Amino acid sequence: MSDFWYGGDYNPEQWPAEVWRDDVTLMNRAGVNLASVGIFSWARIEPRDGEFDFAWLDEVLDLLHAGGVRVDLATATASPPPWLAIAHPEMLPVTEQGVTLSSGSRQAYCPSSPVYRRYAARLVEAIVARYADHPALELWHVNNEYGCHVSHCYCDASAAAFRSWLERKYGSIEALNDAWGTAFWSQHYAGFDEILPPRAAPTFKNPTQLLDFDRFSSDELLECYRAEAAIIRRSSTVPITTNFMGFFKAADYWKWAQEVDIVSDDSYPDPADPYSSAYAAMQRDLMRSLGGGAPWLLMEQAPSAVNWRERNAAKLPGQMRAWSYQSIGRGADGILFFQWRQAVAGAEKFHSGMVPHGGTDTRVFREVEQLGAELRMLSGVEGLLGAPVPAQVAIVFDWDSWWAIEQPASPAAVSYIVDVFSWYRALAAAGATIDFVRPTDDLAGYRVVVVPSLFVASDEQLTALDAYAAGGGTLVVGYLTAVLDENLHVRTGGYLGLLRETLGVWIEEFAPPAAPDLAALGSGTPPVLTVSGDAIGGVAEATLWGEYVRITSATVDAVFEGGALDGHPAVTHHDRGAGTAWYVATQLDDAPLGTLLDGILTASAVDRLPRAAGVEFVRRGTHLVAINHSDAAVTLELLGTDILTGAPASGLSLAPQAVALIADA
Amino acid sequence: MSDFWYGGDYNPEQWPAEVWRDDVTLMNRAGVNLASVGIFSWARIEPRDGEFDFAWLDEVLDLLHAGGVRVDLATATASPPPWLAIAHPEMLPVTEQGVTLSSGSRQAYCPSSPVYRRYAARLVEAIVARYADHPALELWHVNNEYGCHVSHCYCDASAAAFRSWLERKYGSIEALNDAWGTAFWSQHYAGFDEILPPRAAPTFKNPTQLLDFDRFSSDELLECYRAEAAIIRRSSTVPITTNFMGFFKAADYWKWAQEVDIVSDDSYPDPADPYSSAYAAMQRDLMRSLGGGAPWLLMEQAPSAVNWRERNAAKLPGQMRAWSYQSIGRGADGILFFQWRQAVAGAEKFHSGMVPHGGTDTRVFREVEQLGAELRMLSGVEGLLGAPVPAQVAIVFDWDSWWAIEQPASPAAVSYIVDVFSWYRALAAAGATIDFVRPTDDLAGYRVVVVPSLFVASDEQLTALDAYAAGGGTLVVGYLTAVLDENLHVRTGGYLGLLRETLGVWIEEFAPPAAPDLAALGSGTPPVLTVSGDAIGGVAEATLWGEYVRITSATVDAVFEGGALDGHPAVTHHDRGAGTAWYVATQLDDAPLGTLLDGILTASAVDRLPRAAGVEFVRRGTHLVAINHSDAAVTLELLGTDILTGAPASGLSLAPQAVALIADA
Amino acid sequence: MSDFWYGGDYNPEQWPAEVWRDDVTLMNRAGVNLASVGIFSWARIEPRDGEFDFAWLDEVLDLLHAGGVRVDLATATASPPPWLAIAHPEMLPVTEQGVTLSSGSRQAYCPSSPVYRRYAARLVEAIVARYADHPALELWHVNNEYGCHVSHCYCDASAAAFRSWLERKYGSIEALNDAWGTAFWSQHYAGFDEILPPRAAPTFKNPTQLLDFDRFSSDELLECYRAEAAIIRRSSTVPITTNFMGFFKAADYWKWAQEVDIVSDDSYPDPADPYSSAYAAMQRDLMRSLGGGAPWLLMEQAPSAVNWRERNAAKLPGQMRAWSYQSIGRGADGILFFQWRQAVAGAEKFHSGMVPHGGTDTRVFREVEQLGAELRMLSGVEGLLGAPVPAQVAIVFDWDSWWAIEQPASPAAVSYIVDVFSWYRALAAAGATIDFVRPTDDLAGYRVVVVPSLFVASDEQLTALDAYAAGGGTLVVGYLTAVLDENLHVRTGGYLGLLRETLGVWIEEFAPPAAPDLAALGSGTPPVLTVSGDAIGGVAEATLWGEYVRITSATVDAVFEGGALDGHPAVTHHDRGAGTAWYVATQLDDAPLGTLLDGILTASAVDRLPRAAGVEFVRRGTHLVAINHSDAAVTLELLGTDILTGAPASGLSLAPQAVALIADA
Repeated sequence: MSDFWYGGDYNPEQWPAEVWRDDVTLMNRAGVNLASVGIFSWARIEPRDGEFDFAWLDEVLDLLHAGGVRVDLATATASPPPWLAIAHPEMLPVTEQGVTLSSGSRQAYCPSSPVYRRYAARLVEAIVARYADHPALELWHVNNEYGCHVSHCYCDASAAAFRSWLERKYGSIEALNDAWGTAFWSQHYAGFDEILPPRAAPTFKNPTQLLDFDRFSSDELLECYRAEAAIIRRSSTVPITTNFMGFFKAADYWKWAQEVDIVSDDSYPDPADPYSSAYAAMQRDLMRSLGGGAPWLLMEQAPSAVNWRERNAAKLPGQMRAWSYQSIGRGADGILFFQWRQAVAGAEKFHSGMVPHGGTDTRVFREVEQLGAELRMLSGVEGLLGAPVPAQVAIVFDWDSWWAIEQPASPAAVSYIVDVFSWYRALAAAGATIDFVRPTDDLAGYRVVVVPSLFVASDEQLTALDAYAAGGGTLVVGYLTAVLDENLHVRTGGYLGLLRETLGVWIEEFAPPAAPDLAALGSGTPPVLTVSGDAIGGVAEATLWGEYVRITSATVDAVFEGGALDGHPAVTHHDRGAGTAWYVATQLDDAPLGTLLDGILTASAVDRLPRAAGVEFVRRGTHLVAINHSDAAVTLELLGTDILTGAPASGLSLAPQAVALIADA
Repeated sequence: MSDFWYGGDYNPEQWPAEVWRDDVTLMNRAGVNLASVGIFSWARIEPRDGEFDFAWLDEVLDLLHAGGVRVDLATATASPPPWLAIAHPEMLPVTEQGVTLSSGSRQAYCPSSPVYRRYAARLVEAIVARYADHPALELWHVNNEYGCHVSHCYCDASAAAFRSWLERKYGSIEALNDAWGTAFWSQHYAGFDEILPPRAAPTFKNPTQLLDFDRFSSDELLECYRAEAAIIRRSSTVPITTNFMGFFKAADYWKWAQEVDIVSDDSYPDPADPYSSAYAAMQRDLMRSLGGGAPWLLMEQAPSAVNWRERNAAKLPGQMRAWSYQSIGRGADGILFFQWRQAVAGAEKFHSGMVPHGGTDTRVFREVEQLGAELRMLSGVEGLLGAPVPAQVAIVFDWDSWWAIEQPASPAAVSYIVDVFSWYRALAAAGATIDFVRPTDDLAGYRVVVVPSLFVASDEQLTALDAYAAGGGTLVVGYLTAVLDENLHVRTGGYLGLLRETLGVWIEEFAPPAAPDLAALGSGTPPVLTVSGDAIGGVAEATLWGEYVRITSATVDAVFEGGALDGHPAVTHHDRGAGTAWYVATQLDDAPLGTLLDGILTASAVDRLPRAAGVEFVRRGTHLVAINHSDAAVTLELLGTDILTGAPASGLSLAPQAVALIADA
Repeated sequence: MSDFWYGGDYNPEQWPAEVWRDDVTLMNRAGVNLASVGIFSWARIEPRDGEFDFAWLDEVLDLLHAGGVRVDLATATASPPPWLAIAHPEMLPVTEQGVTLSSGSRQAYCPSSPVYRRYAARLVEAIVARYADHPALELWHVNNEYGCHVSHCYCDASAAAFRSWLERKYGSIEALNDAWGTAFWSQHYAGFDEILPPRAAPTFKNPTQLLDFDRFSSDELLECYRAEAAIIRRSSTVPITTNFMGFFKAADYWKWAQEVDIVSDDSYPDPADPYSSAYAAMQRDLMRSLGGGAPWLLMEQAPSAVNWRERNAAKLPGQMRAWSYQSIGRGADGILFFQWRQAVAGAEKFHSGMVPHGGTDTRVFREVEQLGAELRMLSGVEGLLGAPVPAQVAIVFDWDSWWAIEQPASPAAVSYIVDVFSWYRALAAAGATIDFVRPTDDLAGYRVVVVPSLFVASDEQLTALDAYAAGGGTLVVGYLTAVLDENLHVRTGGYLGLLRETLGVWIEEFAPPAAPDLAALGSGTPPVLTVSGDAIGGVAEATLWGEYVRITSATVDAVFEGGALDGHPAVTHHDRGAGTAWYVATQLDDAPLGTLLDGILTASAVDRLPRAAGVEFVRRGTHLVAINHSDAAVTLELLGTDILTGAPASGLSLAPQAVALIADA
């Protein structure tokens, strides 16, 4: 598109037809140019098995087209109608505990169900046949938020599909037995027909079975997507997407991103959470990275409050706009909302809409109008729409490691996302722009690559990381990296695999401090470790992790102090070929981690963004975006001009939630 | 009865027959004149399918009669015997997750089960045939604590009954689809046969389905009661009751109260909870209100500890007596206990009894004797037994709103009872006597009517509330009122429906503060709002709720301070016809709410009770009851005489837990 | 054996055969002389129904034998292979909620399953036939950690077995009805065929049913053991054991200990928990006591970290050795580990091994080698291996009371183990060596017998305790003792049964303070009671328990202060025949309980061990073991010589985690 997309989910079936005309009029007023239609319309389109009713949808699409609003048309398969589950209860999902999940909410289907897939395909075929050539069509929207509520199913159909998936992967049952380590606990399988999904069991399940079930479950959902996309592609050249959900554990979006024509994302930061702005920035950077740097689409955000938290805080005045510009700045070419008109019934009626319950004489609608007008203006500005976001720093992100490190029976209960976020936050605070990458991506263009807890790593991945360092890069490796190979077998001899050479260290033993619940006993060592060294700016505390690092050829930059780890290395670096490789053997709080990374960025000659307390900066194309997330006004001293106001960037005062788009001087 | 009832549950089947004679002797000594018999006797009366054994019960009833103890005779249907579930496992209840609940505890039956209902009816017919004319009969006790453990059943029999209930209510499936808003999330039903109870599902269920299932579940239990009562009424004119459980969510007691001849209640305040006295007072006021002001019966209270809390605190010396007088003062004509003789086996053996494990040389038995003697004396006092409790203030209480506001996917996780209790506590502390009412009751006699979070409200209800204000009443409306209609459809255009006119405000948007769990992050805004204004006595904090109130014609009495809501109205009032209507857009702590209500009561010329720290006052008939719930002695300066001691009320010292009954001078 | 056993679980099936030879070499280097083999080998030994493969095991046993390592050979029945559950899903365990637990972890079998028992027996027969005469055989290891994950099964096979067990116990259904008190809540059974396991039910289940189900479940597991042991004994005279798990609730080890030839134990103290050393000492004393004072075997401990806690702390340097000597000191004749070589796959790969992932150049392996060498040396020392541990103080420990006191619907939520541990800790701190006993054991040799919360007590038990006191012993009885008889019927008339005579008191009523969650309300009495008296060293606080004690002939040593219990007795003593009986009506913190018990030990002339802060002492045979569990060095002033270092015990400095073995001078 030659303009920024602007609009949202549009559910006309929830409203009488007379409202539809008002909707188009209001959309025009708000600057809306794209509407997502039909996402939950299966029961309306096919009210009975095989009976299709498209008349209403014809009318809606024609109305939108006449009003100049283009359409992101859904395949409507996200929520099967009640009649399907009544006729085929075997298509309902089953939990790990054996509980069948009924119709009556949404997404009540087993992703592996042949019945579901057959009915979904028939529906998609009918929709594509009807609308492939509709002039309003801008985008295909396959299903919706795959895996949101049912990502793993344990029914018999899933069991059969899992067995097939395993047979394709392993070829022979002995290969599976080796990979899964079934010599342990008498788990040896005589044939694939003995294998089940990891249903409720007496105690810890087989870790590799769990990991393969995570991989399988992501693949099964993706297979649903691929089947629908294939139907579409047979008749249409309009681009296809399905909406991602940020850092969503159940779907390995690296694989998914290869299948969509444009990455799109649903993003719901909590206005009440002080970390939300930074976390949302990280999510936007992932979306850009999934698409290899190409523009992406913010498919859903809330105009104000959502409805599914314990308390649903409203966005602050200006906050929706601020987070929208954050997306634009980080590579989005469109800003859509869930949803256009706030519902009056159903489970999401308290989710805010662009047209709220209170109508148009409201703060929310005024902010929607303002942003629409601004995006229309910005569509004509050179060097913004479609422009890239340059990054010299990358963080390795890996679904296998996420799945594996959060399994039970691990050295410590680690949250992968919390860990990755702590690295991201410190790098961003140091003025870096960050891409997410896989180890096997082309890393040569990055001056620094950070590897947080890459718990599971293949030889190929480790070789790539080592080559990056040897080639002149700066590699920063966090604790709990390369502990396991891709089958979750331990890399013996000091963990880290090949990175032992890269880093010049090996790990003798893990030694995390006591868990927080033990501190309640009121005696003994508090559950923290002390770390000290110039590299981290003095003395710091670490609460989650410690280990015995053995030096072969690295230099020690910080050590543990006190306790059993006293004097053992906590941070090291090592020259590797033309580059440098750092190892961080503990988790660090924001301040010491920031000090460490600031030094590393400087040593690696990474270009920095401006920095000001509470203000987010990001550069897109020829513009610098500045957003004040704090609750106090900030004055900037920069070169250039704010194209939103025409004001010079030198001495520019940004009120809370205010935004500046500063064109290069 | 011409005397206060006094006694308790009596379970002779747990004891050898030789104990029964001692029981009657001890009952006489304790002043007991009413015993509830047979509540859990089904397995004893009908030890095998169709074999009835009444001989033991004949003997028990004859013994009681001979001893002058009258009988509250149970229909014995509360707990089916094991043989019934063995023969008919389909009568067992099933949870939302599909778990069948077995026999072996109590009340293991599906309320909609035709099998259960058929067997229960046969049992009741046999009991009525046997005892309808027994001279000891004072009261019929139908079943017991309906819904206590199994209020909602999800089995197939319940599904069929739910479908019938819905078909009777809606007439057509399209009416149901409209009411439930099934256009959302593809939930449209093609016929009633597709509908299920709200069993476990992937995510949020349909809210109107949930509400209808709550209504249905209350009705199904009530239908069980009605069926038994109908059998009794065919042969007996003795009054019928079933014991309520205070503010019990699963049963809409407004409907139930219409079916009983006398309201009776089970009340178990926690002696360790400092709020118990106030909460118990509120519960007694509900019971009086359910019966339209008629005397009611305290069917069960504990002589001392119960057995089902994490820790079961003993009542303080005198506390059982104090809470008994609280009941008398608030309209009870009888004080019964669970139970007469403390059990020596079974799950309730640690629940205290009037005759404790320790025997009669015990504090508990002495207090039982003392109260029995006092009630006998008080039965002869004019203007107490059967006398009314005058109230000029009413609180609207509504089960639909309770059910709906505590559903998931709401603006905030609100506890309806905590909210109602905060209003009650503040009104009581200000010296008001309080009735509970429905909006459509005759409100004209009340000077002030308070409406806490009437989340769900019909047009009829709102019209009635408006008419009350317009007719000269003082209406006080709390936040989250009339957000939804009776089908849970949003009242758009500012919520409140017709009350927008009454109050002179509309609500633009909800804006609750952050949830408490976010405060743990240690940064950002703490989860409170500040409110200030003379009406609430200065500055106060609010933790749960805030919203953007828009004024049309109201006067602002307090505003939010700071944050996004800064300067927005928090408390308003508005002249409406001959009356006044207040709106309170946040929840307030006891002190500011007390200040606000104190001012409103004064402006509305509400008569007040005396006030003294820690002392509860209530007026019944021609007597003022004073109860010292504090742990320090209090000296009263009142007119009149304490009829319990003969002491003058002026200068009367009340020890902790002590009670005075002050006859008008 | 003439040497201390030293070694661990050995799972050669997890490793290629070339590793086996290295293992034997390393075992020799580490001083290993015993390996537990085959525990999880069922699927390897019998890969298909009825097909046995022993060749690999022949090789392993021959290799070990050739290397001088003896074998603790498992019956391999702990974890059935997947093919068995596929062929016979009815042998899988079922939870209380009706969830079938699948294969894929371990121990997925119903202990009562006839199918499981038949297949297990066939396997054991095959193993015994093969190896009964193998020269490496030192010990038979039946199954593994019976009940660890599935101790109670609720399937239909369990129901049938439970009914048979009950019929054997009660003879007639009326005897069961009497014992269970089924007159309560209409639970009367017309026949055994109506009885079910205590499956999910609407509310509190029958307490005696629950207790009998606990007894049954322990017995069913024991029956599995007995069946396997019987097969072994038909062909072998080698001693038989099965590994216990310390204070394991689901198995009444008093009964189990009668069936094993040597008691063996698995012990996993948390290095991060400051109470671990004391708790582990208590566990070792239980093991010695279960065997009647005979030497026992530490079957499993971790060389360093485990893998199943939220965080798995490493053992401190020296801590494994310290805890090993604790076991030796408290009667163990062998120290084994789980496991020999740390696994590289499966759910326990992060559990430490004697040969860690990091190899032999590691702290862990060095400590393993050191201990092996020391134990070889100590095997030759007179008066240690096989020597007794003399104790003059005993604590009564009773599984029935444990099961019953932790049932729901009790006076307060009491943790039996926390309670027992508080007594143990105070006694140990006062310098006592402690045996655990049953009331009906021969108590005459003990100077003090402590009875913590013997909630359930038979007349026989109470008679024995009274006889002990009357015979000159000092009996110390804690609150909540003898409240119930063995059928859980209340001992009316003041609880305590016969002990009312012994103690000179009776209990009028229980009065625990408020539960901690109520303190959060911020008003009212905090949830503590105050206790004062010289016997406890002044004034103390009690948080869990209070009661109204009535004195008949006892002397009061401490009283409650304040509140309703003000002035009521909290600690009493009473002369009973030639002895003394104390009653403690509340729980006390370590300091006041220590003061009380110190006085009692002195009055009873109990010999004390040396005492030094942070140092554990225990005497075995002719040696005093001293272990410094603190984080500071301690200097001892004792007679004798440390046989580990040859240093004189006078002025001996013990570093943290250091150990001395002081031979009598």
